[in-house]
Amino acid sequence: MKLATLKSESEDGRLVVVSRDLVHAIDASAVVANLREAVRDWDRCAPLLQALYDQLNAGNPSNPFVFDPRLCAAPLPRAPQWCDASAFLNHGRLMERAFNTAPIPDADTVPLMYQGASDDFLGPHQDVLLPSEADGIDFEGEFGVIVGPVSMGATAEQAQQAIRLLVQINDWSLRVLGPREMRTGFGFLQAKPSCSFAPVAVTPDELGNAWRDGRIHLQLHVTWNGERFGEPNAGEMNFSFGQLIAHAARTRRLSAGTIVGSGTVSNLDRRAGSACIAERRVIEMIDQGKAQTGFMKFGDRVQMSAKFEDGASGPFGEIDQRVMEFSL
Amino acid sequence: MKLATLKSESEDGRLVVVSRDLVHAIDASAVVANLREAVRDWDRCAPLLQALYDQLNAGNPSNPFVFDPRLCAAPLPRAPQWCDASAFLNHGRLMERAFNTAPIPDADTVPLMYQGASDDFLGPHQDVLLPSEADGIDFEGEFGVIVGPVSMGATAEQAQQAIRLLVQINDWSLRVLGPREMRTGFGFLQAKPSCSFAPVAVTPDELGNAWRDGRIHLQLHVTWNGERFGEPNAGEMNFSFGQLIAHAARTRRLSAGTIVGSGTVSNLDRRAGSACIAERRVIEMIDQGKAQTGFMKFGDRVQMSAKFEDGASGPFGEIDQRVMEFSL
Repeated sequence: MKLATLKSESEDGRLVVVSRDLVHAIDASAVVANLREAVRDWDRCAPLLQALYDQLNAGNPSNPFVFDPRLCAAPLPRAPQWCDASAFLNHGRLMERAFNTAPIPDADTVPLMYQGASDDFLGPHQDVLLPSEADGIDFEGEFGVIVGPVSMGATAEQAQQAIRLLVQINDWSLRVLGPREMRTGFGFLQAKPSCSFAPVAVTPDELGNAWRDGRIHLQLHVTWNGERFGEPNAGEMNFSFGQLIAHAARTRRLSAGTIVGSGTVSNLDRRAGSACIAERRVIEMIDQGKAQTGFMKFGDRVQMSAKFEDGASGPFGEIDQRVMEFSL
Repeated sequence: MKLATLKSESEDGRLVVVSRDLVHAIDASAVVANLREAVRDWDRCAPLLQALYDQLNAGNPSNPFVFDPRLCAAPLPRAPQWCDASAFLNHGRLMERAFNTAPIPDADTVPLMYQGASDDFLGPHQDVLLPSEADGIDFEGEFGVIVGPVSMGATAEQAQQAIRLLVQINDWSLRVLGPREMRTGFGFLQAKPSCSFAPVAVTPDELGNAWRDGRIHLQLHVTWNGERFGEPNAGEMNFSFGQLIAHAARTRRLSAGTIVGSGTVSNLDRRAGSACIAERRVIEMIDQGKAQTGFMKFGDRVQMSAKFEDGASGPFGEIDQRVMEFSL
């Protein structure tokens, strides 16, 4: 099924069920107030939400309305945790060259993961307010999973069973700030402002065979100011989501609603392009001796949407945002 | 005033007002359900809670009860963000020697800070369940502030105005896991399980002159299995809390209830001892050629409480916990 969160007076927004074709929606408040509560009470809520979804797709729901993604918040406007991996080794190896950092030992067997802020996620059409172009504003297109409760020490297999919903994310990054924060060893903080989310969260069955091996085998189509930037396939992820969740849960339990991210999608085949500017820049450095592409300017627009390998539209809807200057 | 959160069926617990001497408490539910809501609605709630506090201290409240810190959760059992600094440069410099890492550039002018999990904080008397002694279990005694909403780009002065409450924290750390996570540049994740909090959160005025220059001038008395470990004074912090909050808010806004931590308290004067084992170990390495002290074993107990410089008990109550083995 497909779920979305409309902005409301509540910080958690208002849950709606979205039709398979993303055209219509129905209110879910008779079942549960918001997605955060739904994920916490999944065994009760999921069958009821699925029944609404089936009615909606059959064309006979009560009180359907036109689904407008411009009214959407992130599926979870705030989440208990946001643990973001860098699970495409191709990207990591390219970035090591860009940042001139030493290769990370065991990066092919132990996932890289940082903890990000999870209290203020942005919806798919919200302007992204950032303080300075000089910080090196970049997008990072990726996918993630929303989990139910995960016990400390869960195995990858157990962790994968906890996956409730799949989401599509733009993990905004400030590239000028990143290298310093990496060198301190304390990891990203200022370099990672609030993430944005595509409007629709989906259960894995919505992907059919494109959900397999704990991976999302979809292409992430990215355009920047209307120009094609890349469409890397997330099936190339070097760890499964089960492995990523288990990594996050090694020494802590994860509350229901925790989001675990894949990191920017990246393919070995350069014809796929990239899902972030930093990666394109380092490829330019390698191929042409120096980076040609600058980072984003205020007013720039980025669009991201997933597609199946046969070209059919993916299930998440679109992220379509502008970067704007924040001033106090 | 002094506030605490009793465990309840709600994940956010139940707010109580605690008497100045920490002996009695009264329910605050007529004002607000929990501390999270109180911090969000501070202008309305603070005067009403202060009135309850004044009645309680005057000895004529309605329905007072004996305050039992063993029933306490963390003041905020879950918070929007947990941003923890390493604001005592003495500690950082010692740890660089312990971890054999390069000196961090600008560490004396730009605060070190990592983002930690904030969805599952522990109360002052809860057992701390961890998976393995081999991870190098360590305590880190420190202080923190709970803030109201902070705008992106707030100055240190503006940020300091957002401080609502002061808290005392044990930032549990797994030392065997830390160095690898630092080397990746992605920062601490597995190395930082859930933090524990002393029972009582206090408004800065409760410290009198011990709250000045944006710093908490209290000694943090730490004992391990009943033996004195140290009593470093947190007034030696190299950044003010205003500076730490402003660092966290450089590229993001902070939701009301965000907690910003000082990092483990550490003094140049070694007679003060330490607030974490790792620091004692590196001092042993420097003085005696190798570390003598091991990390914690299951069943070990740590106690932490703040005192004024004249020896009077501090306002936060005590953390008194045992480390126990977690098994699925």
